[in-house]
Amino acid sequence: MLTNVIVFQSDFGLADGAVSAMHGVAISEDPQLKLFDLTHDIPPYNIWEASYRLIQTIDYWPKGTVFVSVVDPGVGSSRRSIAVRTSTGRYLITPDNGTLTHIKRILGIDEVRVIHESSSHLPHSELSYTFHGRDVYAYVGARLAAGHILLEEIGERVPVSSVVELPVLDPVLRNNRIEGTIDVLDVRFGSLWTNVPLELFKKLDIAQGEAVEVCIRSDTRSVYQNRLVYARSFADVRVGESLVYLNSLHYMAVAINQGSFSKAYGIGTGTSWRITFAKADPPSPEKDTTP
Amino acid sequence: MLTNVIVFQSDFGLADGAVSAMHGVAISEDPQLKLFDLTHDIPPYNIWEASYRLIQTIDYWPKGTVFVSVVDPGVGSSRRSIAVRTSTGRYLITPDNGTLTHIKRILGIDEVRVIHESSSHLPHSELSYTFHGRDVYAYVGARLAAGHILLEEIGERVPVSSVVELPVLDPVLRNNRIEGTIDVLDVRFGSLWTNVPLELFKKLDIAQGEAVEVCIRSDTRSVYQNRLVYARSFADVRVGESLVYLNSLHYMAVAINQGSFSKAYGIGTGTSWRITFAKADPPSPEKDTTP
Amino acid sequence: MLTNVIVFQSDFGLADGAVSAMHGVAISEDPQLKLFDLTHDIPPYNIWEASYRLIQTIDYWPKGTVFVSVVDPGVGSSRRSIAVRTSTGRYLITPDNGTLTHIKRILGIDEVRVIHESSSHLPHSELSYTFHGRDVYAYVGARLAAGHILLEEIGERVPVSSVVELPVLDPVLRNNRIEGTIDVLDVRFGSLWTNVPLELFKKLDIAQGEAVEVCIRSDTRSVYQNRLVYARSFADVRVGESLVYLNSLHYMAVAINQGSFSKAYGIGTGTSWRITFAKADPPSPEKDTTP
Repeated sequence: MLTNVIVFQSDFGLADGAVSAMHGVAISEDPQLKLFDLTHDIPPYNIWEASYRLIQTIDYWPKGTVFVSVVDPGVGSSRRSIAVRTSTGRYLITPDNGTLTHIKRILGIDEVRVIHESSSHLPHSELSYTFHGRDVYAYVGARLAAGHILLEEIGERVPVSSVVELPVLDPVLRNNRIEGTIDVLDVRFGSLWTNVPLELFKKLDIAQGEAVEVCIRSDTRSVYQNRLVYARSFADVRVGESLVYLNSLHYMAVAINQGSFSKAYGIGTGTSWRITFAKADPPSPEKDTTP
Repeated sequence: MLTNVIVFQSDFGLADGAVSAMHGVAISEDPQLKLFDLTHDIPPYNIWEASYRLIQTIDYWPKGTVFVSVVDPGVGSSRRSIAVRTSTGRYLITPDNGTLTHIKRILGIDEVRVIHESSSHLPHSELSYTFHGRDVYAYVGARLAAGHILLEEIGERVPVSSVVELPVLDPVLRNNRIEGTIDVLDVRFGSLWTNVPLELFKKLDIAQGEAVEVCIRSDTRSVYQNRLVYARSFADVRVGESLVYLNSLHYMAVAINQGSFSKAYGIGTGTSWRITFAKADPPSPEKDTTP
Repeated sequence: MLTNVIVFQSDFGLADGAVSAMHGVAISEDPQLKLFDLTHDIPPYNIWEASYRLIQTIDYWPKGTVFVSVVDPGVGSSRRSIAVRTSTGRYLITPDNGTLTHIKRILGIDEVRVIHESSSHLPHSELSYTFHGRDVYAYVGARLAAGHILLEEIGERVPVSSVVELPVLDPVLRNNRIEGTIDVLDVRFGSLWTNVPLELFKKLDIAQGEAVEVCIRSDTRSVYQNRLVYARSFADVRVGESLVYLNSLHYMAVAINQGSFSKAYGIGTGTSWRITFAKADPPSPEKDTTP
């Protein structure tokens, strides 16, 4: 079932040698391994975004793929390192710091093993206190992907419930109004990806082409309020026009066609950024032409 | 003749999971595929630059290589998706929006097939309206590269003449003066790459080491005018000195040795940026020492 | 002993087609080659940093791996191109311009061959004067990695002593004070990596948890002076607190936990940036809470 495929993720960037050292450790373990990178541009220490990028991609990879994710502000502390198998048959090696929040909630985890860092590191190499990505995670991930070790041999089994989760707010439908959070950006295009799934949005009974009342708040401050069209895709609106649409993960999103909604209105991500959707009352809303 | 090699290009950037999702789709189709990336830093929606990067690289790859290029401002519109074979035996999968402009004009295209998006997408997955890169292009490209489908099975054959081209201006020699356009930058180094080929430039009868009169205009505004040496390479001029040289695609280019010509003079790319080359009259031109 | 593995490094960036053209040349030589990238974000023309990134990573790769490093401000000049085997059994192809400074000093070089550019370039292709990365280095590197040519067949053997080195200052212990240089940044996190190895630092007799007097000068200007804790890792200090620690290459480093020391104090790298470490006198130093 293992595929010899490893996918790496980190907040290391690609400008120095950190990622290449991890790749080298993996290829040294087994030259037949196939190495890929999810992204190494996770903003430094941003565990939430690391968690989101994993759920965005993991099940597009074959069963048996091993993900090594290293966003590790607590390196050298007593935070655990774990290896898990998801309910859909992929593996992850990561510090247990919330990186698996979305995987645990949305896909489910079947089995969790604790990695004993002092006994599971690159041989002939003193354990660095600051780069477990190279010395522990890449090494253990490569051994697992290559079939040189089994998940159950990695370490002691612990309950799935013990895996650390970041706080998550579920979207709420109340008085014909859905309130959700802005989870993440479609980085290059500045679109807002919310935590409101299509199934919930459908309860507002808004057809494609109809108008949605959108409000965005940051804590108590109102940041944006307007009527947008619920469009099938960007091509249904004019260049520069804003829209509500279904993103490629089947959650509701907000964007400006060929512009950046995030930059246009200074909107960020996280649980302090709330968005509400409601059906707009009048039949023919005026078009939003900002900016 | 197929090589199991796919090369991806897009304007998605590498900071989120979009490219990794495309990679995962390809590896899921066939784990033996070899995946590479041309670049994912095409400026958003810049079809011209996508077209240029393809012609810059495609024939350095083996015959049978499949390129998947996704710069797709019209995703969800009625723009066609096509699969083509070039006259030099490489394959491309792309929205038909001008991405093949240079390939069609310079290399030639042998065969064009229309991809029917609704029947050619990732199975067990609803077709997303906003991410055909993952759901259609990566999937069809992987099937083609893996030999799981033949070009002629992808869809209906259409004439090569129907492939969309962006407007292109040809360089003109008139009164011992060549007028061309600034097609693209050598991004990291800020050099200007023009559309003036060596063969045409030779008609000016300027030897290496001699001076060239260079004028750059943006629409009607004159932006730069100076005499530069026509050098064999950067090493022939001093650090900080400007030069005219033959670039690695055998077109004429303008640069500052170890500086950025583009930033120094605020020069951009596209058909509104015109450059003229002429033989400088006096035998011993003064050296350009800007900046 | 050859592994079919090539690792590329350059200052080309990934935004245009230069790296992809090099990859294509290598895969065209032998589709079985496994291609990796160390980094292509070496600052333009920064040979020192290219040298450092090689020593940072090379021995994490298997013996027989071929590195192709192209930071080449002198392309087209008479600078030599060389192929070498390190004392640890890895190979490098590079312009001989100082790129091997650290490799030569720290690992040692066993054998050096001069590449004759005019006879060792991509066939059926005129030698470009400005892109030897594609036409010479990627091509020769691929032939070496694929076993199509042996190191001794590449060109004439020359003495190891002839390999160009950049000037390096060795750290000095004097009056219970170590003076070293700031060699490079841990780019993403803004930490300072010095040239002071652990063995030398130990002579100051500072235990983990104790205080270090740190001074940083740029030429004659004093830039930073403070007492920092010598911590085992970032997790031993508070968020925003500065620390001295042992980096993953076993040299001494200075950082702010979850901040950028480099940006906080405007500190750069190179031999003009001097850092001194000394044992702090008083038993209980006050904590540094900047910035």
